[in-house]
Amino acid sequence: MNEAKRKIALLIEGVNDPIRAKTAVSLIRYRPEEVVAILDSTRQGETAQSLFGIGGNLPVVGSLADVPSADTLLVGIAPPGGKLPQPMRRAVLDALERRLTVVSGLHDFLSDDAEFAAAAQAQGAKIIDVRKNNEHEVANREGIDERCLRIHTVGNDCSLGKMVTALEITHALKRRGRDAKFVATGQTGIMVEGDGCPIDCVVSDFINGAAERLVLANQQHEIIVIEGQGSLVHPRYSAVTLGLLHGSMPDGLIMTYEVGRTRLNNMEQFPVPPLPYVIQLYETMGQVMHPCRVIGVSMNSRNCTPDQAEAERERVRRELGLPVCDVLRHGADELADAVLKFKQEIGK
Amino acid sequence: MNEAKRKIALLIEGVNDPIRAKTAVSLIRYRPEEVVAILDSTRQGETAQSLFGIGGNLPVVGSLADVPSADTLLVGIAPPGGKLPQPMRRAVLDALERRLTVVSGLHDFLSDDAEFAAAAQAQGAKIIDVRKNNEHEVANREGIDERCLRIHTVGNDCSLGKMVTALEITHALKRRGRDAKFVATGQTGIMVEGDGCPIDCVVSDFINGAAERLVLANQQHEIIVIEGQGSLVHPRYSAVTLGLLHGSMPDGLIMTYEVGRTRLNNMEQFPVPPLPYVIQLYETMGQVMHPCRVIGVSMNSRNCTPDQAEAERERVRRELGLPVCDVLRHGADELADAVLKFKQEIGK
Repeated sequence: MNEAKRKIALLIEGVNDPIRAKTAVSLIRYRPEEVVAILDSTRQGETAQSLFGIGGNLPVVGSLADVPSADTLLVGIAPPGGKLPQPMRRAVLDALERRLTVVSGLHDFLSDDAEFAAAAQAQGAKIIDVRKNNEHEVANREGIDERCLRIHTVGNDCSLGKMVTALEITHALKRRGRDAKFVATGQTGIMVEGDGCPIDCVVSDFINGAAERLVLANQQHEIIVIEGQGSLVHPRYSAVTLGLLHGSMPDGLIMTYEVGRTRLNNMEQFPVPPLPYVIQLYETMGQVMHPCRVIGVSMNSRNCTPDQAEAERERVRRELGLPVCDVLRHGADELADAVLKFKQEIGK
Repeated sequence: MNEAKRKIALLIEGVNDPIRAKTAVSLIRYRPEEVVAILDSTRQGETAQSLFGIGGNLPVVGSLADVPSADTLLVGIAPPGGKLPQPMRRAVLDALERRLTVVSGLHDFLSDDAEFAAAAQAQGAKIIDVRKNNEHEVANREGIDERCLRIHTVGNDCSLGKMVTALEITHALKRRGRDAKFVATGQTGIMVEGDGCPIDCVVSDFINGAAERLVLANQQHEIIVIEGQGSLVHPRYSAVTLGLLHGSMPDGLIMTYEVGRTRLNNMEQFPVPPLPYVIQLYETMGQVMHPCRVIGVSMNSRNCTPDQAEAERERVRRELGLPVCDVLRHGADELADAVLKFKQEIGK
C-alpha cells in the first residue's frame, strides 16, 4: 500500500460527522500528501477545513468527474457493523467504471458484492478490502522478546482517539531518536501505516493469536505502540478489546477518554463509567497475562475551550496522579516522557 | 439436524484421549441412540467402554466398510486451532465416496477443501460444517426480556466440562418440570442440541452480538443455561469467553474446574489460577454489563477416587460457601437447586 504515492478521493457522501467519518479525517491528518479531494455531493464546494476543522483548502467535490487526477477512491467512514450505506454505492460503481482502485475498511467486503466484483472485472479495476484477513492460528506464547517495550492505548469507550494517541506517541518517540513503531490494529490505522492486522475482523478463536503475531512481527523495535480497539466496558466490542489486550501482553497502558462524554458511543442507554474504575478493570484484566499498568492518560478535549481543557488536565492529573495530555492540543511529549521513564523503571 | 434419527460413525482415528475426542465422547453420552460405531483403525476391535469408559459395547471399527448401516460420518475431535489431522483425510474421502453425510465442527471447513468438495459433488454427498456461520450484527441491547433467568457455565480453563455441566443442569431442571433450555455455543453442543451458535467462529466484532441474539432467540423459556467457552484466564481463548459473558448477560454463573489440574490445557507453561481469584474475575467482568454472581461450583473429578472426590467436595464447599458437585458423579441436583433458589432470591 505504501509503494507509490496514491491520489486519493475520500468518499464520505453525507457522513460528515468527524467521528463516523474518522477514516477520512485520519487520512487527511496523517496522509495529507496523498489526499486530493473529499467526495460528498451534499456538501459540494466546501473544504476539508469547513467540514472537519482540518485539511485547509482540500476541496469537497460532488463527483469523481470533478477530480480527474484521482486514482483511488477510499471509503472514508467507519460505521458500526461495517456496512456500506446505500447512497455510496453509485460512487463506488462510478470509481470502478473509471478504473480507480477502491479501498474499503468495511466488514462487508466490497469484493464480495456481485455488482462491484463484476464492474471491477469488466474494467480491470482493483478492490482492496483492508479488513479481509486469513488469521487462523491460536496464541502460543513462544518466541516473545521481552526486551521490546510494549505500550497499548486503551479507552473507556470506542471512537475517542486510541489510534491518534498511539500514532502521536510513536511520532514523539521517533522525534527523540527512539526506534518506535506504531502497530495498527484497525482499518484506518492500517490505511495510514501501510501494515497491521484488522483485529476486529479476525475469526474470534484467533483474536488473541493475531494480536500475539503482531508482537512477534514487530518486536525487533525498541518500543511498539499498539493501537487499541473498542473498550472493555462497551457492550458491543469488549471481546475484541480483551483479545487484543491479552494477545499483545502490554507492559504499559495509556488510558484514553473524551472530556464531557457521558454516554457510550452508539449505545446511549449506557453511561461512560468513571476513569478510576476503568483503569482498575484494564489493569486487573491485563495482569491476568502479564505485569501491566496504566502509565498515562490521553484526554480528547476536542469540545473544550482552552481554559476548560487546562482545568480538566489539572483535575485529572491530581485525581489519578498520572501524566495527562491531549495529544492534538498539547502534543504527545508528556506521554512520550512517561513511556521512557516507565521503560527505565521496569528495566527494559 | 434433529429431524430424523441419523446413524453416526464417529471419526477419531488415533485421537482417543477423551479430552481431545470430546465431541465423540459427548455424542456417545447425549445421542447414544444415533451412534453406531467409532472409527479408529489404531484401536479396531475394542469398544467405546474400553476407550472412553462410557458407551458399553459400541464397537470401534477400522473402516466404514465394517459399518454399512452408517449414513453419517461425524468428525469426533476438537483440536486446538480446529484443523483436520492428516490421517483423517482418507476416512472423510471414503465417507463421501460412499455418499455418507460428513459432519464437522472444525474451523477449517471441509466444504472449502477442494478435494472434499469435488468428491461430495461427484457423489451427491453432503458436507455440514457446523462452525460455518453468517453472524454479522453487533449487540444492541434491545428487546431483552428480564423475566427469563440466564445461567452461564464458566471455568478456570478450557476443556473441563462447561458444556456437560450446562446440559446436566438443564436436564435436572426439566426433570423438575421447569421450562429450561440448553443454549449451545460450541460445535459439540450444537451437534448434541440441534441448534445454537458456534461462537468461537464468529467474526470478532460480532461475538457479543451473536451471544445477545442467542438470548433473544431463547428467552421465551423460563430458564436458559448458556454453555460457556474457553476461560478468561486462557491466553488463547479469553476474547471468546468475554464476548459470550458480556453478550449473554447472565444473572448467575456456575464455575467449573477440574480437580488436580494444575496447568492450562495446551499451555503447560501457565498454572491454573486458584478458584477464588477466578470467581472474582468473572464476577467483576460480568458485572460490567449486568448484575451477576457465581451461585455454584461444578467440579470435574474424573481422575479422583470416590474418597478423594468427597473430600474435595467438602473442602471447596467450606472454602467458597457455595454448592458443589460433580454433575456426572453426583448428578446435577445440587446445582439445579441452587439455580431455583437463586431465581427466587432475585425475584425472576
